[in-house]
Amino acid sequence: MEYTCASCGARYTATALLFRCRCGGYLEYPEYRVFPLSALAERDHSIWRYREAYGLPRDCKRISLGEGCSPLTRVSLPEGVMLAKLDYLQPSGSFKDRGAAVLISLLAHLGAKHVVEDSSGNAGAAVSAYAAAAGIRCSIYTPDYTPEGKLSQIRLYGGEVRTIAGTRDDAAKAAAQAAQRSCYASHLWNPAFVLGLQSTAFELWEQLGEELPSLIVLPLGSGGYIEGLQRGFEVLLHAGYIEEAPRLVGVQAERCSPVHRAFEAGAERHSEIEVSPTIAEGIAVQNPPRSAAVLKAIRDSNGYTMAVSESEIQSATEKLLQRGVFAEPTSAAAYAAWRRLSSADRAEAIVILTGHGLKQLSKLTALLG
Amino acid sequence: MEYTCASCGARYTATALLFRCRCGGYLEYPEYRVFPLSALAERDHSIWRYREAYGLPRDCKRISLGEGCSPLTRVSLPEGVMLAKLDYLQPSGSFKDRGAAVLISLLAHLGAKHVVEDSSGNAGAAVSAYAAAAGIRCSIYTPDYTPEGKLSQIRLYGGEVRTIAGTRDDAAKAAAQAAQRSCYASHLWNPAFVLGLQSTAFELWEQLGEELPSLIVLPLGSGGYIEGLQRGFEVLLHAGYIEEAPRLVGVQAERCSPVHRAFEAGAERHSEIEVSPTIAEGIAVQNPPRSAAVLKAIRDSNGYTMAVSESEIQSATEKLLQRGVFAEPTSAAAYAAWRRLSSADRAEAIVILTGHGLKQLSKLTALLG
Repeated sequence: MEYTCASCGARYTATALLFRCRCGGYLEYPEYRVFPLSALAERDHSIWRYREAYGLPRDCKRISLGEGCSPLTRVSLPEGVMLAKLDYLQPSGSFKDRGAAVLISLLAHLGAKHVVEDSSGNAGAAVSAYAAAAGIRCSIYTPDYTPEGKLSQIRLYGGEVRTIAGTRDDAAKAAAQAAQRSCYASHLWNPAFVLGLQSTAFELWEQLGEELPSLIVLPLGSGGYIEGLQRGFEVLLHAGYIEEAPRLVGVQAERCSPVHRAFEAGAERHSEIEVSPTIAEGIAVQNPPRSAAVLKAIRDSNGYTMAVSESEIQSATEKLLQRGVFAEPTSAAAYAAWRRLSSADRAEAIVILTGHGLKQLSKLTALLG
Repeated sequence: MEYTCASCGARYTATALLFRCRCGGYLEYPEYRVFPLSALAERDHSIWRYREAYGLPRDCKRISLGEGCSPLTRVSLPEGVMLAKLDYLQPSGSFKDRGAAVLISLLAHLGAKHVVEDSSGNAGAAVSAYAAAAGIRCSIYTPDYTPEGKLSQIRLYGGEVRTIAGTRDDAAKAAAQAAQRSCYASHLWNPAFVLGLQSTAFELWEQLGEELPSLIVLPLGSGGYIEGLQRGFEVLLHAGYIEEAPRLVGVQAERCSPVHRAFEAGAERHSEIEVSPTIAEGIAVQNPPRSAAVLKAIRDSNGYTMAVSESEIQSATEKLLQRGVFAEPTSAAAYAAWRRLSSADRAEAIVILTGHGLKQLSKLTALLG
């Protein structure tokens, strides 16, 4: 696979150790690869039905745990019926399995025997699960204040947890340093992760009878999912499978909204801002490394950003649970945003719920019990 | 819907309060309803693509949370590749959502405003989720020794938990008594629950390109899933969609194996036996009310039962996690049984994993950490 640097344009061939440009810029995969329509009828219902779009080498073995093809369902809510993509019904419990499956398949193909990653949340669980499936050793770097419960899933997959004194950024630096000797399976930096996230665009198009909603509302932390979705829709446009792509609406927590502020200010990338803790901890990303790509994706889609308050997120979490939808607060932030839309927009939108509430049973009980 | 009693042959029309025969026997739905092949291409990927098979009244509103169509995936294990149905990737985290969706749809249609159920495990979570989706009040009766953690999911859905002093059977009796005024949404007694479980037979047939494996290995507690699967395959045979049905292999824990013992003894139903606690608590059912139907289903399929030890279940749980498959110990019991099969049988089998490991994070950590 060939990547280019988004900052300086340098070109690279993917290796197990490559994750960003020497200049510090993030890498992109510039090609649009299209899956053949004629093949779909014969293929499994997983992200691998669209395998050509990920650009993996032809002889790359697929590391799969059954990811993709999550349900699209109608949820009756006080504001009306919400069309929701339950994208937490994935092997490790979040949408990140889509990216991890493609990334770990590539890294295993490139000879990785050990991967490192920094995340105590959904990405850490996803990378551990796929590393386990590939028979690759895995070390996850986390800040030392991470609650024990969040580390259990990683450890149960056989992943090693390395706790680092300091902030979330210190854990990221420790992972990047370790990556000089091991592979950095970074959901934030590695373009292969984003390529896997395209799969949801393709799925929505198939699930809706090859038509698309006019709005897609989803939580926005690092923004990889928005970048992946927009790329997926561009592939569909490029292939002539669709004529118009949906507008993407990225939802941040007011307490940590660097991308939202940059969008509102018309900036090309985020600036470092003061943040405070939010119950939507899955989107609490203070310094998203690919923010320029994310902001471009939102603007290219003719979309926008929103920021929701703690009380809106809490109320949305509670209301979803009480309609039988077991999503984590981070996911519920998207519903909180959907509630604010006009009724015409609500009827035209799909809301993506990204992380499983079962990962946060005690947190949810403390919050709402 | 018309039911007949399996013991005395009495006939009943379904009402919100009906759950068993006056003679104490369990009820069955005698008809084989077939879904039309021509409709499948147009229908959603959920259990409702096979809607005709559940026998619900035509104007019954479907209460759906996106259940069904769980992944079928190949898991690389020391014994070889295991074809696994990840049936815990369901809205409330277990296969029971298939039954609860159909049962609650029916009860809501019949006018239920309040349902009761006895289960602190997967069935309690499933019934609470679908009651919440339907806007129906829900009370779950559990023994007073049930760990708090298992009740959280029920409470978060808005279900009421009623703890009853005594044994599991005392909780069941309290639920049955409450059901004289409310509806008993029983996964053990109500035939509509079993009808929903047929959906997995149809899905496997579609997922495998309209062919079927020769063996299906799954955990066996009350046995409703085996009854539902066998019924589903009979529907497919009856419709002429298949010519041969798979053999069903029900797996119990050695410490609680009333159905296995009855099968081995050639008995028509289980006898009350001494049991002891097992880590596969989801299949620890001492007195399965429909055991005669379950034993008949196993025999009709030309299948058999197996019982696995605690150490086999523990080892199987650990091995699955370390290959990226996050199943609870009850599900892993099926893998423990698959390990014992001949290599020819292993290659021909599908293993159904029924419950999500995320529900039991602290238990898994205590067991394996």
